[in-house]
Amino acid sequence: MTDSTLNAVNIPDLIRKKRDGEEHTRQELEQLVLGYTRGDVPDYQMSAWLMAVFLRGMAEQETADLTMVMAESGDLMNLGDLPRTVDKHSTGGVGDKTSLILTPMLAALGQTVAKMSGRGLAHTGGTIDKLESIPGWTSELDEDRFIAQAREIGLALVGQSKDLAPADGKLYALRDVTATVDCLPLIASSIMSKKLASGAHTVVLDVKVGAGAFMRTLDAGRGLARAMVDIGTRAGRQVRAVLTDMDTPLGHMAGNSLEVLEALATLRGEGPQDLTELCVALAVEALAAQGEDETQARERALATLHDGSALAKFRAFIEAQGGDATYVDDISKFDVAPGRADVTATESGFVAGIDALSVGRAVLALGGGRERKGEAIDHGVGVELLRKPGEAVQAGDSVVRIYHRGGRGLDVAQRLLAGGLSVSAQAPAPDDLILDRVF
Amino acid sequence: MTDSTLNAVNIPDLIRKKRDGEEHTRQELEQLVLGYTRGDVPDYQMSAWLMAVFLRGMAEQETADLTMVMAESGDLMNLGDLPRTVDKHSTGGVGDKTSLILTPMLAALGQTVAKMSGRGLAHTGGTIDKLESIPGWTSELDEDRFIAQAREIGLALVGQSKDLAPADGKLYALRDVTATVDCLPLIASSIMSKKLASGAHTVVLDVKVGAGAFMRTLDAGRGLARAMVDIGTRAGRQVRAVLTDMDTPLGHMAGNSLEVLEALATLRGEGPQDLTELCVALAVEALAAQGEDETQARERALATLHDGSALAKFRAFIEAQGGDATYVDDISKFDVAPGRADVTATESGFVAGIDALSVGRAVLALGGGRERKGEAIDHGVGVELLRKPGEAVQAGDSVVRIYHRGGRGLDVAQRLLAGGLSVSAQAPAPDDLILDRVF
Repeated sequence: MTDSTLNAVNIPDLIRKKRDGEEHTRQELEQLVLGYTRGDVPDYQMSAWLMAVFLRGMAEQETADLTMVMAESGDLMNLGDLPRTVDKHSTGGVGDKTSLILTPMLAALGQTVAKMSGRGLAHTGGTIDKLESIPGWTSELDEDRFIAQAREIGLALVGQSKDLAPADGKLYALRDVTATVDCLPLIASSIMSKKLASGAHTVVLDVKVGAGAFMRTLDAGRGLARAMVDIGTRAGRQVRAVLTDMDTPLGHMAGNSLEVLEALATLRGEGPQDLTELCVALAVEALAAQGEDETQARERALATLHDGSALAKFRAFIEAQGGDATYVDDISKFDVAPGRADVTATESGFVAGIDALSVGRAVLALGGGRERKGEAIDHGVGVELLRKPGEAVQAGDSVVRIYHRGGRGLDVAQRLLAGGLSVSAQAPAPDDLILDRVF
Repeated sequence: MTDSTLNAVNIPDLIRKKRDGEEHTRQELEQLVLGYTRGDVPDYQMSAWLMAVFLRGMAEQETADLTMVMAESGDLMNLGDLPRTVDKHSTGGVGDKTSLILTPMLAALGQTVAKMSGRGLAHTGGTIDKLESIPGWTSELDEDRFIAQAREIGLALVGQSKDLAPADGKLYALRDVTATVDCLPLIASSIMSKKLASGAHTVVLDVKVGAGAFMRTLDAGRGLARAMVDIGTRAGRQVRAVLTDMDTPLGHMAGNSLEVLEALATLRGEGPQDLTELCVALAVEALAAQGEDETQARERALATLHDGSALAKFRAFIEAQGGDATYVDDISKFDVAPGRADVTATESGFVAGIDALSVGRAVLALGGGRERKGEAIDHGVGVELLRKPGEAVQAGDSVVRIYHRGGRGLDVAQRLLAGGLSVSAQAPAPDDLILDRVF
């Protein structure tokens, strides 16, 4: 296509096509998405198109094409000849320290994790913020060092490049103000465009389902997982997803230092059962995607938590990125806020639920998260779930502990947590953590 | 509602509501449409909302509310105590000089026509351009003079105020570039917002149907007519619509001076049958909407064309607005381009069709219309249909005559008209001009 024919593209004709429920060609998606990223297609045309996509949907191949066009809108990370590259994505959860544990497990399993991660925003934390609880650790690596480190120890982690799938950032901002966020092909292509641009051959996805999650129902979660797996497969990647319950935070800890402490315990084989189970399940998916027998994969994955190999990878990773590795072995060094305030049960019975969103907002109120990009955060504050759903409590028992530094946000956090805690007379039916798998 | 609550309106919530197929309240439509007109709601939110309206539709009351909000977005013409005020609107046709004839007929029937008219754009002509074929005639009247003239002679015509339903102009420009034009509630509210703002109590609508019209099928035309009549009725006006065929231009003439000449012939009772029939039908609708018996209304309307009363009103109207009234009686004074070029039949048979759009474009190519607002036009050029569909022709017979001034656009006009002319072996079934009525 020459420049002159490209310039002659009639954007309203493309909007009309989607409006009438037709399927776009890849070339048309390039005209729309790359034109929008360059600034040639104005916001008002793109938002009309987004609403048409919302109401008319997209076919599978069309969604895959859209994702690839978005991925190719910026830099493509070249992982070159790194062996068995694996990436992981979670649709976002409170107290989700899975990446801190899974990535060294994968490295110990002979996989290469050369991964981009984000910072936290609003009530969800970010892996980079958590790792910055360890003094000296930095996410700023140049590309050569990043690749060399991944090759050497199997694990390297950098902040997300601004030029990774820039179309996604621009489209997301527009969707946010035009009521076009909750749209399956747009959500799936947004997530997968960054995974495709990041270059890993195998991708494991953790799709959170529940009242506090982006996907409210298991069916909606399955739809998203299926769409993402299809996109990845059409792009020649090995992609698998697990659907996990996130009505309650994973493990017991929420807050940056506290989550690293819990991750370290898990890497020593002493972690909470739900967190350990999810990390092992995701590792199994990564290995099974590459053809490994699931039973053997499970044994190998569990072993990394008991033979010290995952912890050793974590230590090497921290050290390679400038962190003080003595923190890994002497957890008393972590800065944990000294104030304690407990939220207690007002009646006797069983813990029925501890709302994950309330926990996330409490950490935010305490100063452990940021409302706006670029804000500094307090790594030491957080929340500990002393009891988890299903456990028996007496009225007056402490159920949730707040780690704080005096007044800041403490009242808000207490109110949020008291409101998010429910106690019932009967023991609730135990929730399965892993609700389904999609591949 | 206070300013602070108004500012707190969440536009994405309103977009979401329409996206999900819900019905807006009038207050919500004010927040959207008046906010957009003020510039508080950006284009990209309005275009997402327009696409949601396109795909989800609007309920009857919602469409009426939208129309009233648009009407109230600018000045409302106050026709005060003028008696029996009537307005007319056509959805646009080639060679449609109906307003030139109908408005003095209505004045002669004791109605008051205090009307705003537009200029032509692209292939459709405008009443003001046509009247400017008469030297001195002006559409620039101040409001006092406009009302006084309407009271005195029953007919006054001004250019459309920029502040008449400004929301419509802004929304239309956005719809034009976002593939949201062809949407019934948006079309109906666009037309009716200007009619409601113009203040007349009775409104007659001429909805054109056919291959070259905005409404391609009779069903689509009926839908639009029904929507507009409903809007007007809900706003307390008397509204009636006729659906008319516009596969072929009305009468024989297209072009500014030529159309005025044909209108003058019609006002003398010597006009073409189709044009006369439509003017009488529209006059009957106006009178019947006010409760007059249809048979009597028809007789009274026809009489104005034969007793000179409509022509007298036209003469008084031209004079009152500065025009040289001697043109009304001595039609040889009109500037008609001296060049003649005929398009002939290439085979013998019956004229099957003369495509209205081709005729409109030919006039435009000759210089009789404008591509862009503000361009000067040549009033003397045009096209005469020497034969109309159904008439027998021999190969070589002239069917269409071009009035031109040498080379300018003549080749284009000839090509367009030759392409738009079809001759068939059998006589085509005669088309009814008036296809249906809606009230």
